[in-house]
Amino acid sequence: MKNVLIIGCGLLGSSLVKRIAKKKLAKKIFIFEKSKKNITKIRRLKLPGILVKRINDGVLKSQLIIFCTPMSEYKKIILKINKDLNSQHIITDIGSAKLKSREVIKKNLKKNIFWTSSHPISGSEVSGPEHGKQDMFENKWCILIKDKSTNLKHLKFLNYFWKKMGSKVAVMHSEKHDKIFSITSHLPHLIAYNLVKSAQEFEKKQKYDLIKYSAGGLRDFTRIAASNEIMWRDIFFNNKKNVLKAINIFIKNLNAFKKDINSKNNNSILKKLIQTKKVRSKIIKLKQDVNKPDFGR
Amino acid sequence: MKNVLIIGCGLLGSSLVKRIAKKKLAKKIFIFEKSKKNITKIRRLKLPGILVKRINDGVLKSQLIIFCTPMSEYKKIILKINKDLNSQHIITDIGSAKLKSREVIKKNLKKNIFWTSSHPISGSEVSGPEHGKQDMFENKWCILIKDKSTNLKHLKFLNYFWKKMGSKVAVMHSEKHDKIFSITSHLPHLIAYNLVKSAQEFEKKQKYDLIKYSAGGLRDFTRIAASNEIMWRDIFFNNKKNVLKAINIFIKNLNAFKKDINSKNNNSILKKLIQTKKVRSKIIKLKQDVNKPDFGR
Repeated sequence: MKNVLIIGCGLLGSSLVKRIAKKKLAKKIFIFEKSKKNITKIRRLKLPGILVKRINDGVLKSQLIIFCTPMSEYKKIILKINKDLNSQHIITDIGSAKLKSREVIKKNLKKNIFWTSSHPISGSEVSGPEHGKQDMFENKWCILIKDKSTNLKHLKFLNYFWKKMGSKVAVMHSEKHDKIFSITSHLPHLIAYNLVKSAQEFEKKQKYDLIKYSAGGLRDFTRIAASNEIMWRDIFFNNKKNVLKAINIFIKNLNAFKKDINSKNNNSILKKLIQTKKVRSKIIKLKQDVNKPDFGR
Repeated sequence: MKNVLIIGCGLLGSSLVKRIAKKKLAKKIFIFEKSKKNITKIRRLKLPGILVKRINDGVLKSQLIIFCTPMSEYKKIILKINKDLNSQHIITDIGSAKLKSREVIKKNLKKNIFWTSSHPISGSEVSGPEHGKQDMFENKWCILIKDKSTNLKHLKFLNYFWKKMGSKVAVMHSEKHDKIFSITSHLPHLIAYNLVKSAQEFEKKQKYDLIKYSAGGLRDFTRIAASNEIMWRDIFFNNKKNVLKAINIFIKNLNAFKKDINSKNNNSILKKLIQTKKVRSKIIKLKQDVNKPDFGR
């Protein structure tokens, strides 16, 4: 790999810049960023990349192009860079929903150009290049999408690339990806947003100072609910079908819980509360988290 | 204070034992524990307290009695110790819901005996005496309940006591307590349980390995959903009215989110996602959490 272009240099884009530089994976790292605020930050941070004013300059000089913008930006950018793309370009993105993006890409990307989608399961509740870190992807999963039209050479390269970023790589098709992450990521975020919203509503009505006493559980949701709003709007809209299904399952189960509480159904509620504990042990076993109490911090 | 009796020596009971010993707040600390498993652990841990076989022996020798059992145990214990209680006993508990317990206490506690309820906002997803620590209550809120029949001398003593435990103390009546914690604690726990349950259901149906990819958000809920089931059943049942109300608010808001996603209502969803972020800043400002990204760990 000679040069790489990072389009959009927020939390994940800047983490990629740092890691690629550290691993000396590219001769030159070009950065295209449209937000003036972020450009100022990138300069101040002295990120090891070259800011390009015109995105097409970066495209012409690079072999690998990584979209790190919100998914709603893809179309506009594709239309802008189409004329300078060629079939040698390895193009990927880090978006969290895949089916809808595939449609957008298929419809707008120039013929005979390949796009091989990635989804690193990394992130945080903070945004912006100042929070990027080179070990952002360390030991995290990165999903690579393999569909009918996938260029296998590009897939192989990206497998190598993400491993260099520190990730464990799994390959799956878009449908499976969007289903899995509707439950493991999109629904939990929506639920966190909704819980915080419900608390705000209650606080306004009752004039009680809830936040002061938030350490009993609410606090841990506010962390997730502080995530970037543009990114999450795009995810909810782009994975609409699966997210709506997930909400329906959730409401159905919540109504069952409600019924158990209302009728004080001891056996039924204990069964539920015990069952859910098992998932935690499984997560620890799979090393998806550390076995250290944390939420009461 | 001469002697104290801790009834139920799990996570919080054992933390109290350690802290009371460390602060030399009592001459003797008596422990009554009914679980054989926990008794073995307490012996092995060499907790700085004296295990009593008969609870009434502890009652007769102590001035302060702290109930650290699940709330569903109160009635049975009260009936057992009634004959050895006198009006000098300072009795408290650490239960998470207050209105229902007040009823149980009023109905069963011997006449002219005072009970002054406490609720330390401390805990963790792990249970058992082996997880207790002397700084469990450090800088955490402890709510003291003041109702019409509260003995003000006892209230004053417990204020002093919890401060010695490291807590910040707030005083409020049962109604207010149960409303506040239905939103800041009981609903979040129920939601976490329900989310994990929904994920399990989905996994079973789709045969996808969800847990492997749980780091995108789900994982953080499994931590909360691993909390003690008996304790949480009691809380949901004892604060039934407020918890059901909270669920209704939550479902109403979730349906509004669903509508926004379904109709891709950009303004409405962005407004919601931005609003909820503000709570996070408020929590950091109030020092209820540290300003350090965590959920992407």
